[in-house]
Amino acid sequence: MSKILVVGSIGYDTIATPSGRVEDVIGGSANYFALAASLYSTVNVVGVVGSDYRDSDLQILKKRNVNLQGLQVEEGETFRWSGSYVDDLNEAVTLKTELNVFRNFNPKLPEEYKSSDFLFLANIDPVLQMNVLDQVSKPKFIGLDTMNYWIDSKVEDLKKVLSKVDVFLLNETEALKLADDRNIVSAVKKLSSMGPKSVVVKRGEYGFFMYSHNQFFVLPAFPVADVVDPTGAGDSFAGGFFGYLSRNGDVSNLRSLQEACVHGAIVASFSVQDFSVRALEALDWAKVETRMGEYMKVVSFAQP
Amino acid sequence: MSKILVVGSIGYDTIATPSGRVEDVIGGSANYFALAASLYSTVNVVGVVGSDYRDSDLQILKKRNVNLQGLQVEEGETFRWSGSYVDDLNEAVTLKTELNVFRNFNPKLPEEYKSSDFLFLANIDPVLQMNVLDQVSKPKFIGLDTMNYWIDSKVEDLKKVLSKVDVFLLNETEALKLADDRNIVSAVKKLSSMGPKSVVVKRGEYGFFMYSHNQFFVLPAFPVADVVDPTGAGDSFAGGFFGYLSRNGDVSNLRSLQEACVHGAIVASFSVQDFSVRALEALDWAKVETRMGEYMKVVSFAQP
Repeated sequence: MSKILVVGSIGYDTIATPSGRVEDVIGGSANYFALAASLYSTVNVVGVVGSDYRDSDLQILKKRNVNLQGLQVEEGETFRWSGSYVDDLNEAVTLKTELNVFRNFNPKLPEEYKSSDFLFLANIDPVLQMNVLDQVSKPKFIGLDTMNYWIDSKVEDLKKVLSKVDVFLLNETEALKLADDRNIVSAVKKLSSMGPKSVVVKRGEYGFFMYSHNQFFVLPAFPVADVVDPTGAGDSFAGGFFGYLSRNGDVSNLRSLQEACVHGAIVASFSVQDFSVRALEALDWAKVETRMGEYMKVVSFAQP
Repeated sequence: MSKILVVGSIGYDTIATPSGRVEDVIGGSANYFALAASLYSTVNVVGVVGSDYRDSDLQILKKRNVNLQGLQVEEGETFRWSGSYVDDLNEAVTLKTELNVFRNFNPKLPEEYKSSDFLFLANIDPVLQMNVLDQVSKPKFIGLDTMNYWIDSKVEDLKKVLSKVDVFLLNETEALKLADDRNIVSAVKKLSSMGPKSVVVKRGEYGFFMYSHNQFFVLPAFPVADVVDPTGAGDSFAGGFFGYLSRNGDVSNLRSLQEACVHGAIVASFSVQDFSVRALEALDWAKVETRMGEYMKVVSFAQP
C-alpha cells in the first residue's frame, strides 16, 4: 500500500450555516483530506500550526495513524478562517482569513516523506506547491487543487505547477475562471491542455465532472437531505479519490480513476452531514460500503 | 402504440443568448413537446394561435404527423414571449410576455382526442390544466409541468390538479419554491406527498433528479459544449420522457420511468444546440441512438 503525502492548511474555522454556528473548530484542507484518505491508506502530512493548536485536535489524526512528522509547530497563532453559508449552501462567503503562522510557512519534508508515491498539493500558494513537489524524489501520481485567489494573483506560478500534475481537482467556478470560459465542457478541455492528464471538476450537490483519457465521466452527488456544513467537501472528495487510488488503483487506468471519483463523492457526502470534520471522524469503512451500495442504486437502472 | 395528448402554448419567441439573437421564432411548450415526442409516437395537440401564425410553422409539426385538429385559430395575435440568457445560460430573464389570443383560451378537445392514453399538461394556468384533464375519459398516464407564476398566484388550483397526476415534471427553482425547502432531497419528498406518483426535477446542465417508487434516480445532462439556446429544454425533456413511455413503457415500472428520464435528457441535449426548435426539427432516431450510446459511456464505468 502506497503512502500519500499531503501539503495544505491546518487551522481553526468559524462557520455559520442554516443549521447553526460553530467557533474555532478543526478546519483546513490537510485536516479534511488526511481524515478522508486515512480510511484507505497511510497519510503523511506537511503543514504548520501555531503554539495554540490543541493537542486533542492532533489526536484525531493520530488515531487514524496519520503521520505528523512533517507538521511544524511555530510560535504564534494557528491559521484561522471564518465563513458563512447562511444565504447559499453552495458557496461560502469568506468573512475573515487570518494567515498567522501560515504566512511564513516554508515546507520542509522529513526524509521518510520524500519517497511518497502519491502527492496531493491542496489549495495553497502555487509557489509552495512547487516547492513541495520538488522535494519528492519520484512521485507516481500528483494531484493539485487551487482557488480563485491564486488564479487572480499567481496564475503563472499556478500554470507552472499544473503542467507537472496527473490530476487537477477544482471546483466549477474556479474551472470556468481559469479557462476563461462559460461552458464546463470546453473549459475542462482547455484545462486539460495545460498539462494535467485528468481534470476533475467538483460541482457540490451536483456531483463531479471528470475529463480523462479523452472521455467525460459525470455523475451526481449522493442525495443528502441534511446538509449541515459544506466546508471541506472538496478536500474530503480529494481524500477519498487519493485514498482509493493509493489502495487499489492502477493510476493510468480510466476505470480506476472513475472508481476513485465515486469514492470521493461518497466520502464528501458524509463530510457535509455535520460541522467541521466530525462526520469524517465518525466515518468507517462499513459506512462507506453501505452508502456506496445506495449510491449505485441512485445512478443505475433498476433491474427490470 | 398509444397517443399522447399535450395542452400548452404555441407562440413566437424573441430570444437573446451569448450566441446571438433571434426574433419571432417558433416557441411555446406544446411546440417543443410535440416535436420531441413525435419522434417516438403520435401526438395530439390542444392549443390556440392567432391569425398571424404562419402556416409554414404548422407544417413543421405536420411533417411529424402531429395531429392539429385540436389547435384553435383565433382572430388576433399569437402568444409571444421574449427572454434573455445573456448573463446566465441557466436561467432566462423574461423581458416581455404577451398573452394575446392565449388570454381567452378555452381548451375544447376534439372527440377523437378524448380517448388519449397519455396526457401532458404543459405549463399553463392550472385551471386550464384541470379543464383538459376532465375532458379525457380514461387517461392511463398523466404528467404536469408548472412555473413560479402559478405557484405564486394559483397554488391551490395547482395542488388540486397535482393530486391527480402520475408524474410532476418541474425545474429545480420551482421545486424548492413549491415545497418551501432549500434542499432538493427533502423537497421532492414533500412534492411527492402532494399526490404525484413520481417527481422529476429538471436541473438544466446538471441533469435530472427523479423520486419514484421511494427511490432516487439522479443523472447528469449529456455534456454539450455548444449550448446555443436553452429555451424549451424542459419541454423537450418532457417530450422525450412521454414519447419513450408511450412507445415502450410499462408506466408503473421503475425501470421504464428511469429509461424515460434518460430519453428526456438526450432529446433536451439536442434541443439546446440551436435556436428555437431547429435542432428538434433536424433530429431523427439515428441521432438519438448514437447520443444514447455516448451518454451511457459518460455515466457508466469503463470496462476494466
